[in-house]
Amino acid sequence: MKFLCTKNKLQESIFTVQKAITGKSSMPVLNGILLEAYNDTIRLTGSDIDLSIITTIQAEVQEEGSIVIDSRIFGDIIRKLPNDNIYISTTENNSVEILCQKSKFNIIHMNAEDFPEIPNINENIFFSIPQNTLKNMIKSTIFATAQDEARPILTGILFEIKNKKLNLVALDGYRLALKSEFLDNENVINAVIPGKTLNEVSKILDDDNENVNITFTPNHILFNLINTKIISRLLQGEFIKYNSIIPEEYNLRVTAKKSELLDCIERASLMAKDSNTNLIKLKIEQNNMIITSNSQIGMVREELNILLEGDTLQIAFNSKYLIDVLRIMEDEEIVMEFSGSVSPCIIKNSKKNNCIYLVLPVRLLNN
Amino acid sequence: MKFLCTKNKLQESIFTVQKAITGKSSMPVLNGILLEAYNDTIRLTGSDIDLSIITTIQAEVQEEGSIVIDSRIFGDIIRKLPNDNIYISTTENNSVEILCQKSKFNIIHMNAEDFPEIPNINENIFFSIPQNTLKNMIKSTIFATAQDEARPILTGILFEIKNKKLNLVALDGYRLALKSEFLDNENVINAVIPGKTLNEVSKILDDDNENVNITFTPNHILFNLINTKIISRLLQGEFIKYNSIIPEEYNLRVTAKKSELLDCIERASLMAKDSNTNLIKLKIEQNNMIITSNSQIGMVREELNILLEGDTLQIAFNSKYLIDVLRIMEDEEIVMEFSGSVSPCIIKNSKKNNCIYLVLPVRLLNN
Repeated sequence: MKFLCTKNKLQESIFTVQKAITGKSSMPVLNGILLEAYNDTIRLTGSDIDLSIITTIQAEVQEEGSIVIDSRIFGDIIRKLPNDNIYISTTENNSVEILCQKSKFNIIHMNAEDFPEIPNINENIFFSIPQNTLKNMIKSTIFATAQDEARPILTGILFEIKNKKLNLVALDGYRLALKSEFLDNENVINAVIPGKTLNEVSKILDDDNENVNITFTPNHILFNLINTKIISRLLQGEFIKYNSIIPEEYNLRVTAKKSELLDCIERASLMAKDSNTNLIKLKIEQNNMIITSNSQIGMVREELNILLEGDTLQIAFNSKYLIDVLRIMEDEEIVMEFSGSVSPCIIKNSKKNNCIYLVLPVRLLNN
Repeated sequence: MKFLCTKNKLQESIFTVQKAITGKSSMPVLNGILLEAYNDTIRLTGSDIDLSIITTIQAEVQEEGSIVIDSRIFGDIIRKLPNDNIYISTTENNSVEILCQKSKFNIIHMNAEDFPEIPNINENIFFSIPQNTLKNMIKSTIFATAQDEARPILTGILFEIKNKKLNLVALDGYRLALKSEFLDNENVINAVIPGKTLNEVSKILDDDNENVNITFTPNHILFNLINTKIISRLLQGEFIKYNSIIPEEYNLRVTAKKSELLDCIERASLMAKDSNTNLIKLKIEQNNMIITSNSQIGMVREELNILLEGDTLQIAFNSKYLIDVLRIMEDEEIVMEFSGSVSPCIIKNSKKNNCIYLVLPVRLLNN
C-alpha cells in the first residue's frame, strides 16, 4: 500500500471514524482504523460492531492495499504533522511509514484480514431528511433514553414513520420525549436505534440542510452522507406503545414563559440538590405558579406569572426531569397540561405542534 | 445584618474569594465565606488557613453584622439570581434570607465568631509590580515546582529581590525555571511561596498593567489589589542555592526556532508516551538537529535546521521537560547551551535575557 494525501482531509476523516472506536473492545483490531487504498480513494473504517463508520477521501494511490493502524496513535501523529502532503506506505515487518516534510514515523500495523466484516447494506433509500433537522430531533429526545440496561429497548430511540411523519420517541419510565417532523414519504417504519450510537451520529451530522439518506434492513440502519456512511445495529424487541401513555385530556392548562420557568426551577433545585429526589413542589394558582423546595440547608420560594385555564393544583416533581425538558425546548411560550397531582404532566410548545414531553410527578405522602 | 447590593458585584466577589476555599477542610466553617457588613461596605473572606482572600464591595448596609455562609450554596444561588438588586438579611434560627425580585431563599448560616482569625499584616509596601508582569512570571516558573511533598520547600516558588531585580525561581530536582524582571527597589528579600497558592493568585491578577502592592512578614506575603487582599503563608526553610546549579560555561550552543523545535519534540514524544520515561534522543550536528524516539509501537525521526557553535553532541531527555519549557517561552528564537551528554542543558531566549531554564538530560547506558 502506498499513497499520498493532504493532512487536513486525512485528519478530518480520522476524526470522523474515531467516533465509532470506543477503545474498550476486547478485540485489539477494533482499536484500529481499517485503511484501504484503491482507485485513487482512501477508505477509512472504524467500528465497535454496534456502530461502524466508513469515510472516503481522494488520494494519489501509488500501490493498492489495506492495513489496520492503531486509531489513537495514527490520529495523534496526523494531527501533529505540518499542514502539507502526507506519504503513507507499508514497509517490511508489518510496518507502515508516515512521511511529511522532515518527519518520518514507522509504526507497527495490524492486518486488514483480521478486521471484522462490515454489514453490506443494499442502499435503497427509505427516506431523506436534512442533516440539521435530524440532528435536532436526536438532541430533542436522546436525554429521555434509559441509562440503565434493565430494559435494553429503552436505551434506544424509536424511529417511527407513519402518516407522512417521522417521530423520534424516547422514554425511561419517568419521562417521555416525542419529536415529529413532516416527511413526504409513504413508508411505514418502526425501528429502535441505540442511544449511544445516535449520540455519535449527531456529532457527525452537519448543521446545514444538506440531506442524509437513510436505509433500513431488519437488523441495521444506514445513514448515508456524501463521503461518509454510518451503520448502526438496531435494538431487537418491541418498543413500548407510547401513544397509550400520553393522556389526551387534561383538567388544567398552564401557559408560561419557558426561560422564566426554567430559571425558577433551576434556582429551586439548588435547595433540592442535597436529597436524592431533587424534589420541588409546584403550587398552581390563578395567575401565579409558586415553586418551593426545602432541605437541611434551607428553603426557597419562587413565584412566576402564568396563565391558568382550569382548577388550581399542587404537584411535586423531580426537578431534573423538568429542567432537562425546558433546556431542550426551543419556543419561548410553552403549555403544561395536568390532570391531577398523581397524573403525568404534558409539556408542549404553545404554538408549534412538533413535540410532546411527558414527566411523571412525585407522589407525596400528604397528597 | 441587613444589606442590599447588586448581583454582579456580589457574584464577582464570591468568585474571587472562592479561590481560597478548597472544600476539603476538616473545619466546616472553612467551607464558608465570612460576610461582614459595616460602613456601607461588604467584606467577603475565604480561607483555607494557608491562603486567605479578602475582597470588599460597596453596599447599602441597613444593619451591621457578620455571618459565615456555605460558599458553594451561596455562590450557586447568587449566580442563578436575576441581574438586579439582592437583599440579604439575617432572620431568626441562624437563618439568612436572600431576596431578589420574586425569588426568596432562607439558608442556614454559621457564626462569624467561629471563623479563624486572618493574619493582620502591617501594610508597609515592600514593592509594587504590574499585575500582568507578575502573572506572567508565575506562569513562566510554576510548572517547574515539585509536585510531591518529599522536599516541601520545592513545592514553592522563590521570590528573590536583590540588585534591583525580582527573580522567581522554581526547581524540582530535574529542571529549574528562573524568570527575572527589573524592579526599581533597593530591598533584599528571600521568601518561598507555596505553588498552589500562587496558582490561585495568578487567576485573580488582571491582564493589565495596574500595580499589585506586595508586603512581606516573616511568615506571610500580602498581595494588595484595589479591592482585594490575598494573604499566603510562606514555606519555612532554606531554598536551594540555585545559582550554584546553573552552569556558567558551555561547550556548544544551538540556536533554533522555538515553534519548529517544539513541534518536532511533540511529535517525537508520541512514540515516547508508552514508556514511563518519555525518552527522546537529540543528535546535534552542524546545521541539523535529529530527534528520534522509539517504543514498542514504532519509531520516529524528526529533523530541523539549527545553528551550532561548538562540537556535535548526542544527548537524551525526558521530552515532557523540554515541552514544558518550550510551551511557556515567548520569544521565537531560542538558544540551548550544552556541556556534554550528562550535564544540564540551559535554554534561554536568544535576545532577551530575562529567563533561564535548565533541564537535566537522561543518562543512557551506552553514553
